Amino acid sequence: MMSRLDRLHSVRIVLVAPSHPGNIGAAARAMLTMGLVRLVLVRPRRFPDPEAVALASGATGVLDSAEVVATLDAALAGCVAAVGLSARPREFAGRVLAVREAAAEAIGHAAHGDVALVFGTEMSGLSNAELARCGIVATIPSDPGHASLNLAAAVQVVAYELRLAAAGGEVWRAPRFEPAAVDELEALYAHGTATLTAMRFFDPRMPKRLLPRLRRLFSRATLEKEEVNILRGILARVDQLLGGR
Amino acid sequence: MMSRLDRLHSVRIVLVAPSHPGNIGAAARAMLTMGLVRLVLVRPRRFPDPEAVALASGATGVLDSAEVVATLDAALAGCVAAVGLSARPREFAGRVLAVREAAAEAIGHAAHGDVALVFGTEMSGLSNAELARCGIVATIPSDPGHASLNLAAAVQVVAYELRLAAAGGEVWRAPRFEPAAVDELEALYAHGTATLTAMRFFDPRMPKRLLPRLRRLFSRATLEKEEVNILRGILARVDQLLGGR
Repeated sequence: MMSRLDRLHSVRIVLVAPSHPGNIGAAARAMLTMGLVRLVLVRPRRFPDPEAVALASGATGVLDSAEVVATLDAALAGCVAAVGLSARPREFAGRVLAVREAAAEAIGHAAHGDVALVFGTEMSGLSNAELARCGIVATIPSDPGHASLNLAAAVQVVAYELRLAAAGGEVWRAPRFEPAAVDELEALYAHGTATLTAMRFFDPRMPKRLLPRLRRLFSRATLEKEEVNILRGILARVDQLLGGR
Repeated sequence: MMSRLDRLHSVRIVLVAPSHPGNIGAAARAMLTMGLVRLVLVRPRRFPDPEAVALASGATGVLDSAEVVATLDAALAGCVAAVGLSARPREFAGRVLAVREAAAEAIGHAAHGDVALVFGTEMSGLSNAELARCGIVATIPSDPGHASLNLAAAVQVVAYELRLAAAGGEVWRAPRFEPAAVDELEALYAHGTATLTAMRFFDPRMPKRLLPRLRRLFSRATLEKEEVNILRGILARVDQLLGGR
């Protein structure tokens, strides 16, 4: 039987466009102290790099097996859930949880497949578009008046909470139905955008806040596979009606 | 009245014989992100030092006001409680708590006076004699097979737990919009049923589980008033399209 701690092996730590190789190394070390081993780098400025190795301390194995990809989509491929870290979540950021709750949810999802914890670039964090790709936004409670956490320090806190969630007696019930995968959700959103555009309910030249609001609504619900199928069935029926006019 | 968060001002972070000034700077930054400002250095190898300033990011104020002392006793002078961090607590280490419980105790003591959180030197941590000076030994749960946390990373985790303990319930809350009223929800479900029926996506004579599933989905999301308006707008547009055929 799979121990709950084994779920840590289903966790990907995704760093989007990290600027400093030292931070990549320190993040790898932070991961390994908590038993996390899967690092994915989206467009790192410099990698591999001796500075990353120096800061990784004993965690060079994490660096050696790190995946380098070109897009956040590629980093999230096949994940059943994605959690984006944000110091100051904005209004339309979807479901926002403190990192402790987010870690518990992520470990719950890890029973069903890979989950990604996504960190933005050092200077500015994740963009709104990147955060929108994550069903859950996690924030590390901190002093609002002061500088944000160093990237590797944030990874350390998140890794620590993931380990506690995996090890602990946290009472979080996994969803009874199979959750939709990230790429299934994206396909739903793309289909919905196309259909709403064809219906002339949505005007891409004047997008306003419609699409972020809908994403936020559905990410709060944590859609299941079958629900995605139902919603796409409704969209397909609207497409038929539009085609028949 | 003193808020519980003000207790963070009674917390001293004590670093015993830190070797690398960069770690002192990164620890200062980690402290400040969580609202801790009192740093005490016992026999630092190099301090002040430009590398500490570089790694402190915006937290140079913490470095400027850091106290440098010659002994752990001097660092603990006047404290009502001291908590020593240890990766692998030894047999005679006194009361050993996970860092979460230790932080809660420390914040409890901070109501009565200063408390110290004590970190050992990078290579070997606190000695048995130093740990013996601390009434509580705290350990950060980590993967037993791997390297210990970087000093500043450990300070970050401890500072984070201290802030959560001090904040109690008051962590960051997602912005809340006005929730839809029960009758607004029922009107939405009725409208949706009518439109799905007119689309011939739903057949009232063979209802299956479609409507309960949709209700379940939207109730999980806890719809807001404005979201109900958006969804009814989409339904109204479909109604128009059907009417125009």
